[in-house]
Parts: sequence; C-alpha cells; structure tokens
Amino acid sequence: MRVGVIGLGNMGAGIAANLIKAGHDVTVYNRSRPKVDALVAQGARPAETVADACGGDVVLTMLANDEAVAGVAFGDGGIIASAAPGTVHISSSTISVDLSKRLTEAHATAGRGFVAAPVFGRPEAAAAAALFVVAAGPTETVNSVTPVFDAIGQRTFVVSEDPSAANLVKLSGNFLIGSVIESLGEAMALVDRGGVDKHQYLDILTSTLFSAPVYRTYGSLIASEQFEPAGFAAPLGLKDIRLVLSAAEELRVPLPIASLLRDRFLRLLAEGGDQLDWSAISSLAARDAGASDHSA
Amino acid sequence: MRVGVIGLGNMGAGIAANLIKAGHDVTVYNRSRPKVDALVAQGARPAETVADACGGDVVLTMLANDEAVAGVAFGDGGIIASAAPGTVHISSSTISVDLSKRLTEAHATAGRGFVAAPVFGRPEAAAAAALFVVAAGPTETVNSVTPVFDAIGQRTFVVSEDPSAANLVKLSGNFLIGSVIESLGEAMALVDRGGVDKHQYLDILTSTLFSAPVYRTYGSLIASEQFEPAGFAAPLGLKDIRLVLSAAEELRVPLPIASLLRDRFLRLLAEGGDQLDWSAISSLAARDAGASDHSA
Amino acid sequence: MRVGVIGLGNMGAGIAANLIKAGHDVTVYNRSRPKVDALVAQGARPAETVADACGGDVVLTMLANDEAVAGVAFGDGGIIASAAPGTVHISSSTISVDLSKRLTEAHATAGRGFVAAPVFGRPEAAAAAALFVVAAGPTETVNSVTPVFDAIGQRTFVVSEDPSAANLVKLSGNFLIGSVIESLGEAMALVDRGGVDKHQYLDILTSTLFSAPVYRTYGSLIASEQFEPAGFAAPLGLKDIRLVLSAAEELRVPLPIASLLRDRFLRLLAEGGDQLDWSAISSLAARDAGASDHSA
Amino acid sequence: MRVGVIGLGNMGAGIAANLIKAGHDVTVYNRSRPKVDALVAQGARPAETVADACGGDVVLTMLANDEAVAGVAFGDGGIIASAAPGTVHISSSTISVDLSKRLTEAHATAGRGFVAAPVFGRPEAAAAAALFVVAAGPTETVNSVTPVFDAIGQRTFVVSEDPSAANLVKLSGNFLIGSVIESLGEAMALVDRGGVDKHQYLDILTSTLFSAPVYRTYGSLIASEQFEPAGFAAPLGLKDIRLVLSAAEELRVPLPIASLLRDRFLRLLAEGGDQLDWSAISSLAARDAGASDHSA
Repeated sequence: MRVGVIGLGNMGAGIAANLIKAGHDVTVYNRSRPKVDALVAQGARPAETVADACGGDVVLTMLANDEAVAGVAFGDGGIIASAAPGTVHISSSTISVDLSKRLTEAHATAGRGFVAAPVFGRPEAAAAAALFVVAAGPTETVNSVTPVFDAIGQRTFVVSEDPSAANLVKLSGNFLIGSVIESLGEAMALVDRGGVDKHQYLDILTSTLFSAPVYRTYGSLIASEQFEPAGFAAPLGLKDIRLVLSAAEELRVPLPIASLLRDRFLRLLAEGGDQLDWSAISSLAARDAGASDHSA
Repeated sequence: MRVGVIGLGNMGAGIAANLIKAGHDVTVYNRSRPKVDALVAQGARPAETVADACGGDVVLTMLANDEAVAGVAFGDGGIIASAAPGTVHISSSTISVDLSKRLTEAHATAGRGFVAAPVFGRPEAAAAAALFVVAAGPTETVNSVTPVFDAIGQRTFVVSEDPSAANLVKLSGNFLIGSVIESLGEAMALVDRGGVDKHQYLDILTSTLFSAPVYRTYGSLIASEQFEPAGFAAPLGLKDIRLVLSAAEELRVPLPIASLLRDRFLRLLAEGGDQLDWSAISSLAARDAGASDHSA
Repeated sequence: MRVGVIGLGNMGAGIAANLIKAGHDVTVYNRSRPKVDALVAQGARPAETVADACGGDVVLTMLANDEAVAGVAFGDGGIIASAAPGTVHISSSTISVDLSKRLTEAHATAGRGFVAAPVFGRPEAAAAAALFVVAAGPTETVNSVTPVFDAIGQRTFVVSEDPSAANLVKLSGNFLIGSVIESLGEAMALVDRGGVDKHQYLDILTSTLFSAPVYRTYGSLIASEQFEPAGFAAPLGLKDIRLVLSAAEELRVPLPIASLLRDRFLRLLAEGGDQLDWSAISSLAARDAGASDHSA
Repeated sequence: MRVGVIGLGNMGAGIAANLIKAGHDVTVYNRSRPKVDALVAQGARPAETVADACGGDVVLTMLANDEAVAGVAFGDGGIIASAAPGTVHISSSTISVDLSKRLTEAHATAGRGFVAAPVFGRPEAAAAAALFVVAAGPTETVNSVTPVFDAIGQRTFVVSEDPSAANLVKLSGNFLIGSVIESLGEAMALVDRGGVDKHQYLDILTSTLFSAPVYRTYGSLIASEQFEPAGFAAPLGLKDIRLVLSAAEELRVPLPIASLLRDRFLRLLAEGGDQLDWSAISSLAARDAGASDHSA
C-alpha cells in the first residue's frame, strides 16, 4: 500500500521502517529534516509538507499530543484539507477521546475513512514490529488497512466501530499504569518503614502474583528512587490522567483512583517536579510516611 | 526434623503432606478429626491436643486468622504453655503485625524461638510444594528451620530479624491485590460505558504490560461479574485491609488507596455482600457509573 | 451613574431594581421581553440589543454561566465590540477563572475597564440590596464603580487588582458549601445508623459550633431528604466543582475534597439525578451505609 | 442530689463548681490533690479514693480518654465494683462507642443505671454552666438525673435509650470539625495561590454563609498558621477520628472524608507534628500546593 507517515519520533520512525521492510510504498514527513533523511536512506520517499504525505491509501500520524495532531489535521494544508478522497487516516498517537471524535466527524464530512489505532509498546517494540495495536473504526475501513497493522505490530485488537473507543482503551491503560505506580509507592513506603528492603520486596512481588512487566519496570524505579532522566515526564502523566478524567466525566464514570493520581501529580509539579519521571509520584507516599526527601 | 503441624485446612494439609514426603517426622493436629486421619494415612502421627503437637523441633501453625492462632498459642495447653524449650514456632498464617509481636514477646519470655513465615500461593501451590515463603526472625533460628521451608516451598525470602516484618509483607501483598481489583474495576467500568467488551479489554491488558496472574485471575472474575462462590470472601478482604491500615497507623504511614478499599468493603457489606468474593468491590465502580446492579 | 444591566433573572432583576432606587440611570436588557417590561415599570430604560445597554458608565452582566457571558461579551454586537471607551464592564456572574482572564485581556486590548464582582447571597438578598460583593480589578477602576456596589450590597470586599481572583473566591465558596453537604451527609448517615434522629442531630449541631446558615439550610434538606425541586441543580454543582478543580489545576493546587465531590456528582448524575438539588449527593453516603434509596 | 465528680480538669472543675452552686451535695475526686482542695474551698467534700466518690445518687466522670475512664470504672475499687445499688453513673468524657457499650453492659449486670452524657462546649462554657449536654440512656434513668444536667448546661438533648448513641453524636461532631479544618485548609491554599489574603478571605466567609464559631475559631488559626501551643493536640485529633472510623466500621458506614482526615493526621505525625494543634493538618494542603513549610 502507499502509506504516508507523519511524525518520526522514536515510535514513528520504527513504524515507518517496518512498513518499508514489509514492502509498502512509504512517504515520510517530520518537522525536522534529519529524521526524514534517515528513513529515506532506508527506502522512504521524503515529503516536504503534510499535504505531500496525504496522497496515498493511508496516512498514519504518530505525534506527541492533541495539539500536534490537531495541528497537522485541521490546519491549512493539513490532512482534512489535503488528503485524497480514498485516503484513510490512521491516528496512532495517544490523544483525547474528544479530539478523536472531532477527527471522526471531520473525516466523515469530507467523505474519508478514519481509524484510531493507538499502540501499546515502547520504542524497542516499535522497532521490532512487536507493537500491540488497538484499533477502532468502521469494520470495512479497519479491514482495508489491516496490512499496515500487520507490518508494525504482533497483534491487533479491533475494539469498536467508534474510533474514539480505541483512544479510551489506550488512556485507560495509562490510568492502570498510574494505579500500579501509586499502589507500589504506598506498599513500599509501608514495608520500608517496617524495616524491609524495597528491592527484596519487589523481588518477592514479581516472583509471585505480580510477575508483569509493569511491576518490574516501575517497581525498580520506585525502589531505587531513580526518577531522572524521565522516561515519561510527570507533566505528561498529569496530561494523560486529565484526559482519562475528562473522557470519564463525559461518560459520567467516577474514578476515585484517577482523582487521587491527579492530586498526586499536581502536588509533584507544585513542588517543582516537572523534570521527573511520572513514577516520582511514588516518592510522595514515602515522604508522607516521614521519609526524607530524595525527589526534589 | 520432628515437626508438628497445627491446622489442616487446604493450605495446612498440603504443607503437612510435603513435610512427610520430604522425610520429616510429622505430627498433625486439627480441631476436626477426619483431616487428621487423612494425613495419618500418609504417614503422620496424630495429636490429640495442641500440646501433643508441640514436642518436636518445630511446631508450624496454619490457621484462619488472629483469633484461631491466639487460641492455640495463648490458651491453657497452648503452644506458649506446652512447647518444649528447644521447639521453634513457625507461624505461617496471615495474621496481624500486632499478634506477631505478641507471639515474639511471649516466646522470647519463654526462651523459645519464633519465626513468622507467611506464604504466597494458593492451595494447589501448597500441594505442589511450590509456595513462596516469606520468613523473618533471628538469623540463627530461621536457619535452623530451613529444611521445613525447603520441603514446602519453591523459594524462601528472609526479610528481617523481626518476625512481624514478614507479616507486614504478606498483608501488604493483599493490599496490592485489592488495589488491582479496584483499579481494574474502575477501568472496566469506564471502557464498558465507552462500548468496549470487557473480556476483550482484559485480553489486551494481559497480552501487554499486565501479563501477571493477579490481572488474569481477578480480571476474569470482574469482567464476568462472577462473584459467587467466593474464593476469598469480602469480610476477609475487609479484615486484611483493616490489618494493613492498623499496621500502617502504628508506623504512621498514610495509605490513601487502602483507605479507599476500606470504604469499598464497608459499602459492599452494608449492602449485604457478605457472601461475595472480595473482587465484588469492583461492581461498585460499575454501579456508580450507572450500570444496573448484577452483584447483590 | 448610567448603568446597563444585562441579565434579569432572579438576581439581576433585584440588582437592577436597587440601582434604580438608588437614583442611577438604568438601562436593562434581557433575552425575553417580559422581564424588561417589569423593570421599565420601575423606571428603567429598555434596551433592544446588548449594544444598546453598553453606552453608559457601567455595564453589569448577571447571567447563568460561562457560555451566556461569553455570548454577550464576544459575539457580534457584544460588549467587547460595542461598549463605549469609558464604559466599565462589571461581571457579577459565577464564571470560570479562565473566562475572567479572557475578559480582562479583551477589555484591556480595547482600552476599557473590567471588574469582576461576583456576589454572595440569594435572590432575597439581591432584592433587599443586602448582597455581599467580592470585587477585583485595578484599584482606580474598582473605585470608579463603588456607587454601583453600594446600591446593591451591604458590604464590598476588594480582594485583588486581578479580576479573576474574585471569581476564584466565589468558586471556592461553592466548594466549601459542597464540603459542608458531603460532610453532613456522612455524619448523618452515621448517626442515623446509630439510631439518632437526624433532625434532632441537626438541632444539636446548629445550637453549638455549627450555627451558620449553610448548616441550617443544607442540613435541613439533607435530614429531610428533600431534594426536589432543586434550588441549585446537581449539574450546576458539578459545573462549579469542575471550575474550581480547573482553576486549582492551573495553580497546581491539589484539592482532595473537591475531587471527592466531583466523583459524587458524577455518580449522582450517572444514576439519573439531573433534576435533583445538589445537596442530593448527601444521599449517596446514606445509601453506601445500606439505607434504602429515597433519592432516585 | 448527692453527686460524685471524678476528674477535675478544666471541664470537670467547672462542672463540679456549678453543681455546688446549684445546691447539690458534691464529692470530688482527682488523681492530684490540689484540684480537689480548690473545690473543697468552694464547698465540695473531698474523696480519697474513687470508691469514696461513688456513694451518692450520681457519679459523674469527666476524664481524658478511654484508658482513664476504663481505669476508674473497671479497676479494683473502681466504679463498677464500688458504687451503691442506686447510684447512676454519668459518663461525660469523649469516649469510644465500644467502651460506652462495655460500661452499659457492666452496669446492667451490676443492676445500676448508666447514662452517657458527653458535652459540647469549651472550658469557659463549663465554667459558665453553658454547656450543651447530649444524653442517652433508659428514659427513667435519664430523667432521674436531669437536675445534674440543668446545673451544668444551658440545654440537654436526649438522643436515644442506648447510651452509646450519645458518644456517637459527640464523636461525629469532632469529625465535622475536622472536615471544616480540612476544607478550609484546601480553600485557603487555593485562594492564597491566587493572590488573595487569607484573613480577608476568612472575613468574607464568616460574614456570609459561614458565620459559625467553628469557622471563626479554626479559620483564624489556619489563616495565621498558628498551630502552637495546641488547644487540642494532633494525636488527640487522630484518636477521635480513629474512634469515629471504628464506630462507623461497626455500623458499616463508609466515611470518605474521615478516611482522608486519618491520612492527614498520620502524615502530620510522621513528619513530627505531635506538639501541634490538630488544625495543623491544614498546613498539608498548603504545602502540597507548593507553599513553603511553616509547620514543622
């Protein structure tokens, strides 16, 4: 298929590379040129503008946040204005349910297909074509772009005919990660005060019921109080929790743990923690238990 | 070693059987006789009284709760009064930090050894000698009973010289399970209102970052709203959260998620949920989002 | 002074009438005409359009919410576009901090004065010129409109040179009322389960430390479970709590009780409580304690 | 009536003095003798032992906490063992619902009357015979001791035939005060960050809907960050919240704000705030908003 990829960060670059490897005809666009050149070296065509990347069967966006996606979608020369009638837009960024609905509506008005397809997996998984893709959109449209998902991920879950449902699933996943961080932070604060070594404690947890990557990865950061450099910075954590709460409010779903997480992030930022990894909210539980402050 | 085992429920019976298999000289005691007979058939000696089970190198208790353990420990003819000078008491029940401290003190006064060694694992793991043992007590005492742990578990973690630290670790583990139940309950209430199938959602979670037994086991119960029969009844969940909060209060550690869990359990019980599995607190998040009530 | 009043609901009508009584030259505008006529009978001039009400020394807006205020301010023929250079805009509605900042900026750009002056008091207080006015804006501008405040209220508090600070104070007051509702709801659920009559309990409270109108008014509604007709409907309660949380997030201030209130309102609305008074969130505490449902 | 008064702290001394003034025949007991002498000078008879104070129509206890009351009630030579058959025990201390039930049972077994009658009011109100008495017990028993209440208070509320209901009411009152402290702490943290003077803010509140002593008294402490010397120390605040939560758990009533207060007190104490007034929990909201630390 002829696929445009907009956004060549760690995730987008891996995705584009795997589309090339799978034999697709790939055009790439990025605000800064060097990332474009690296993919051209792998066989991609360069796009000078967003519009240049919208002429194929599919245009896939992988950008940082709502603002970036809205920018390339709704601006002059953006996707809505420029894409060909048969082009399907796949949005793989972690964006709000609200923006996903606006994109759905705008594409419908323009008579084009739209699929939300956020992914689970880190840059290494993107590079290895091992992402998990959570896709939603009209069945026929989703089916028409299956070769794209096959090229970038190890498995695709189609969750709804309403694109925004996929964004809801992705955001809820980040909420669950935040819940793990907070609960581990509380548990470690407790056992630490009880004289138990936090690393050994984590070893017990991950040897038994909690043998999942999320406990290993974040547990290790929390036990080590290693919050810099940030893998995912606290302001981004707050942003995602805000998007979850906003989507939940629209659906009238109270989420007490998300409310707690929001308060934790606000406090961390009020204390100057903007540069810290989002797992640093765990340090607040420790400090509330009287631990000296290692985090700020 | 000569080992007495007091308490032959699902867990204790498996433990006693594996001690026999490992070649130890095992005496068993239980309030109701049939469970004793079953182990005698496997090679154990029967004890008529608690005191009869306290004459060896080790007496291990595996009972339901604080009341039961305090009963066999402190009563007339109980362990404190009856055990031989060289006998080490291993307490493997999930008991309070407070009771563990009282046992430590009473045994110290009596000049005997005491080790707290709660376990992680279900009855099947107990039967398969595949438990994880979290042990704490004076190093020499713990070392002296290592053969017992080797016979019943796949791995032993020695976490402190203070026995009650092991109980704290066990209780904190149950707090973390409760946190998973609550956060999954909230997340599933959210995606359900967003039109996503809960079982598919769970499949996504457990295929990615959340591939741990605790998410599979409880996620399945929550997605199915299958809360009867109870694997672990709600009143026991409340009891363990109360013990965690009580231990945390003693150490002056605030645990906001544990406070939330406590309120959830109180509400579930106030509404008549005594017979339900503790994972039924997840139904409250669903109902707060306007779902009709399937749980009570 | 020549004063335009836009918005003649229960509050605005009382304010306009008192401005007339105080001898000001008052022009009134309202979307529906009968309310205009009633004030014309008292001596006001009628305005056919928003612009017609913006020609004097002051234009005061008293409207339902952000949308209504933004509509008369920013639209074609709105206040920003139509007011004379010397006209000062007084916004007395309960609006967001964010809208207040946008109004401040727009008026500054247009070279006009802007004062935020939300009020504390019910329609009866507005009718009796007994409001409490919380005003903020540049000192000189606020001083220039003092006669307006004197005509409508019993006391004016000038809290800041930044207009939005007055809106923050007003919103925080509604947060405090919500806190009283929730805490009374919890306390009454408790004593009710303990066999104490809720009305007598309220009598004890308001005879002692809690002898304030907010306890009397809301306590009586809560004890009687009298939530219809709504004096202030639950969706408005949610809206104000959302505005408080949003302002607090901007300032990075965690507000745990506001988070709890938000979850309460979402649940009440998810269960169909849109028509109920906002004090109906108190019924949730009662129901969580096992009380049968009287509220929905 | 012949009345024994046990416990001559600030509250008990005022109560005893007013009983004397009302013409009752008063015997007083206190652990330290000087307080006894002061009342003897006013006309009381001194008691050398608890038992000496239990020979009249009524024995009233006004002591610091559960431990003190249980000590004089259940010990050798205590009230249960020593009081005459016709003596009614009035317990006016703030004690747990649980202890109140134990006292009820013990007195019933002994064939004597028991009335719980905690009071609302500070030492000045006790001195002025202006307390509010919340009484509970069998109607006939309560009626028989009415002259005592008339002598010490301005009004008596009889809330139940079950004595412990009066203790529940008293404890719930302290919970409501704690709620006011926390909500004011959050609101003041917010407006402070918004540039509003906290004292002026309090003036607005107490001039309008919040014109109650509890807002004036605690609002002033919070605005001034004046937490020493403690009028009511933080550990006592934690104790009362614990008693409320415990009584609520027995009745299966979730109290989310009480859970929040508990976490606040634990944190304050973990940080070394034992000497501070309980209103110092308000400083935590301020610090979470980035305010520098004035409290510890």
